Amino acid sequence: MVWSHETGSLDLSTLRDAYSKGSLKPSAVVEAIYDRIARRGEDSVWIHLVAREKALAAARTLEAAGYDGRPLWGVPFSVKDCNDIPGLPTTNGLPEGAYIAQSTGQAITRLFDAGALLIGKTNMDQFGIGLVGMRTPYGACSSVFSEDYISGGSSSGSAVSVAAGLCSFSIANDAAGSGRVPAAFNNIVGVKPTPGLVSNACVSGGGCVKTIETVSVFALTVEDGMAVLERIAGFDASYPFSRPEADKVRLDVGAPPAHFRFGVPKGDALRFFGDIEAERLFGEAVARMGEMGGELVEVDFAAFEETQRILYDGPWIAERALTLDPVLERHRSHIHPVTLAILEQSGQYSAKDAFRAFHRIAELKCAVRPVWEHIEVLMVPTTPTIYRKDEISADPIRLNAQLGIYTNFVNLMGLCGVAVPNGFRADGLPLGVTFLAPGFAESQAASIAAKFHRRTGLTLGATGHSYPRVSAASPRHS
Amino acid sequence: MVWSHETGSLDLSTLRDAYSKGSLKPSAVVEAIYDRIARRGEDSVWIHLVAREKALAAARTLEAAGYDGRPLWGVPFSVKDCNDIPGLPTTNGLPEGAYIAQSTGQAITRLFDAGALLIGKTNMDQFGIGLVGMRTPYGACSSVFSEDYISGGSSSGSAVSVAAGLCSFSIANDAAGSGRVPAAFNNIVGVKPTPGLVSNACVSGGGCVKTIETVSVFALTVEDGMAVLERIAGFDASYPFSRPEADKVRLDVGAPPAHFRFGVPKGDALRFFGDIEAERLFGEAVARMGEMGGELVEVDFAAFEETQRILYDGPWIAERALTLDPVLERHRSHIHPVTLAILEQSGQYSAKDAFRAFHRIAELKCAVRPVWEHIEVLMVPTTPTIYRKDEISADPIRLNAQLGIYTNFVNLMGLCGVAVPNGFRADGLPLGVTFLAPGFAESQAASIAAKFHRRTGLTLGATGHSYPRVSAASPRHS
Repeated sequence: MVWSHETGSLDLSTLRDAYSKGSLKPSAVVEAIYDRIARRGEDSVWIHLVAREKALAAARTLEAAGYDGRPLWGVPFSVKDCNDIPGLPTTNGLPEGAYIAQSTGQAITRLFDAGALLIGKTNMDQFGIGLVGMRTPYGACSSVFSEDYISGGSSSGSAVSVAAGLCSFSIANDAAGSGRVPAAFNNIVGVKPTPGLVSNACVSGGGCVKTIETVSVFALTVEDGMAVLERIAGFDASYPFSRPEADKVRLDVGAPPAHFRFGVPKGDALRFFGDIEAERLFGEAVARMGEMGGELVEVDFAAFEETQRILYDGPWIAERALTLDPVLERHRSHIHPVTLAILEQSGQYSAKDAFRAFHRIAELKCAVRPVWEHIEVLMVPTTPTIYRKDEISADPIRLNAQLGIYTNFVNLMGLCGVAVPNGFRADGLPLGVTFLAPGFAESQAASIAAKFHRRTGLTLGATGHSYPRVSAASPRHS
Repeated sequence: MVWSHETGSLDLSTLRDAYSKGSLKPSAVVEAIYDRIARRGEDSVWIHLVAREKALAAARTLEAAGYDGRPLWGVPFSVKDCNDIPGLPTTNGLPEGAYIAQSTGQAITRLFDAGALLIGKTNMDQFGIGLVGMRTPYGACSSVFSEDYISGGSSSGSAVSVAAGLCSFSIANDAAGSGRVPAAFNNIVGVKPTPGLVSNACVSGGGCVKTIETVSVFALTVEDGMAVLERIAGFDASYPFSRPEADKVRLDVGAPPAHFRFGVPKGDALRFFGDIEAERLFGEAVARMGEMGGELVEVDFAAFEETQRILYDGPWIAERALTLDPVLERHRSHIHPVTLAILEQSGQYSAKDAFRAFHRIAELKCAVRPVWEHIEVLMVPTTPTIYRKDEISADPIRLNAQLGIYTNFVNLMGLCGVAVPNGFRADGLPLGVTFLAPGFAESQAASIAAKFHRRTGLTLGATGHSYPRVSAASPRHS
């Protein structure tokens, strides 16, 4: 089958298959991508696009050497703009604060070493604060399915770049849900690893919410996301929040057991803020899990809810503010007003408040430990609903907080998660579910998530392509 | 040899040997201990002494059942008063705040289960704040070697109870050095485990400086201390700061390698505040290590020094203050004035300060990681010197801080340490050295510490007894 310049899929197995057979060249893929980008016009996805000729030159260098089986040979990707790429500007969503990065961290270095081709740096909520994709001076991205609806954030452009068929994967970041919410709103996969599995050394300033944030991956399939994660994961002795266990973590996507148990939030904790379509879709997800051999376990969600409230209604905002203090000092007048309002809360918290929150989170982690003895994964809606841009503009902080009720607690509790599509509302907007697992149990979450995603029968992102038959994570590639 | 009522040794191998042969009974040991306590008179060691008849009854219950080989069968011990013992008062150094404990944690439960006999609860710097043993309404303990000199603290009574031959071991606690400094000033051993190895659930309120403090052990020998540690160590699923790795940690005392490398602070970092005898003793320790096969590696100490300053001149004081807030509210007028002055500093720190300190400590831990690739242990003076009580009274905060320059950083960096005697100054006052190792490398530190201690040729505490030939940790007992 001929790979179509206009619509050919960028999923990893399609590219590898075509590259290895010689039926497709990276330069042809790059040409197609830049034509697709041009055709989309002004979509607010990019903060810095690599010049077409530079991307083509990199592709031709690969071609000249020939296909060598490297796992990401000729695979196009984007990175959220808060990540440094040597020689390119980093803005972190603040053009006035732009600088040309001199170096990057091992995660991104490993992608280049694996043969991946950078297309550009993507739009984001300023400093990564937000789940909406609207707190940016570069224009708000839209969901690939409606210009009226938010793309989700903060990794907005990253998600759209994958969903629109402009990249195979994107490197994003996730503290509160930035690597999962935009996956839901664009019908793609978001792999959010355990804090410490991937070094944040590639992130501007070594990261913002250093104690909890993670580099994350958007991709069209779980197998693709995990294949990328496998490249970027690993202990980084030079990064203070990297964890030595990182080198030993299983990251394969296998077949889940024929019978397994999955948790869902019990009773009133399952909230959709009046979105009955979202409620219907989650009910269908539960049923799908049953068909897959999953046994439903209702989980008391109080400890998770309390943890999620601590992230923004608590001292962690001081961690963001601390990292951003020098930027605020120099660029106060250019900070997005909503972002500024949030950061200014940080002054109210004392060191005692910080220690109180650490103690409480330790207690809550301890309290939920038995939950994980009874379930393989916890399945939550990735978001309770999706909002229109005008709704967010009218009530930016409260609605943003509502979007995070199933994501905010995850990094504070040291968990990992894989967000996958779960279908469309009657109005054509997508929503997702996230499979959460204990720290470093990425493989467990991904195996169930991959099977679930396949069973939805959904096409990938907005590409129209079906889930590929050959898994990108099949042994011959590992 | 007949065990002497007046001076018979309480080290574990002596007791086990005599118990197993039937030449000594626990009740005879208990009788001897209470006679020794009476003979010492008012020494400020005890806050609550178990009634002689109750201790005897417990000993006779053991005897009636017969020696059963349990590792601590008939072994007398004390606990620092901040630890809860069901049915006994806990004061934490504040009589007005006393309560009768209803329960304790797994560490102390395991001691009773192993057949140990509680003698009493010991004096301490109020709330465990201090390295001196003088910030207590129960009278200041003295070093067993001079009434004019401090015992060290905060675990003051615990150390003296072991050094004076009143207990085989004592359960203490250590955040800044409370389980090491008094070992130095009383010529005994202090085993301070990695934070998270022993559950703090036995400590009043679950501990004060929860993010870093540890239960610790005073004993006459390293083998005794490690034998006790082996009983009390382990994961506690109910305690938020317990670490799952705790069940897998090696705690044996073996023979160190014939050749090994040990670090000492480089250059100016080795400070003794004018105590030339302390300097001489440390020089002898370095020479002794050389004789043992140790190769000296000078270690840049800047990161350790910066960390130690963060503990008291930084936001960690807010963690103490947080835990103690309810106590301060009710008992403000009864708080020791020095302690109150310290706790009142906590208000000046913001949540940003707390996060700044976490980030900095993570960076410093990262910076010193390579150090541990080049040495098996870091040997430091346990303290730079020892002070008279009148010196401490005249300058309580500054001199206390000076005592902690080799101890304060250890828990913040997640290290473990074994403090052992290192000889006497010309004036007869003892000083020690501490062997530090990475988290969960207790066995590595203890093996070198034990060999070092034996080679000093010192008698144990103030007992006059030599290091026993049979190790308490010999295989038949493990």
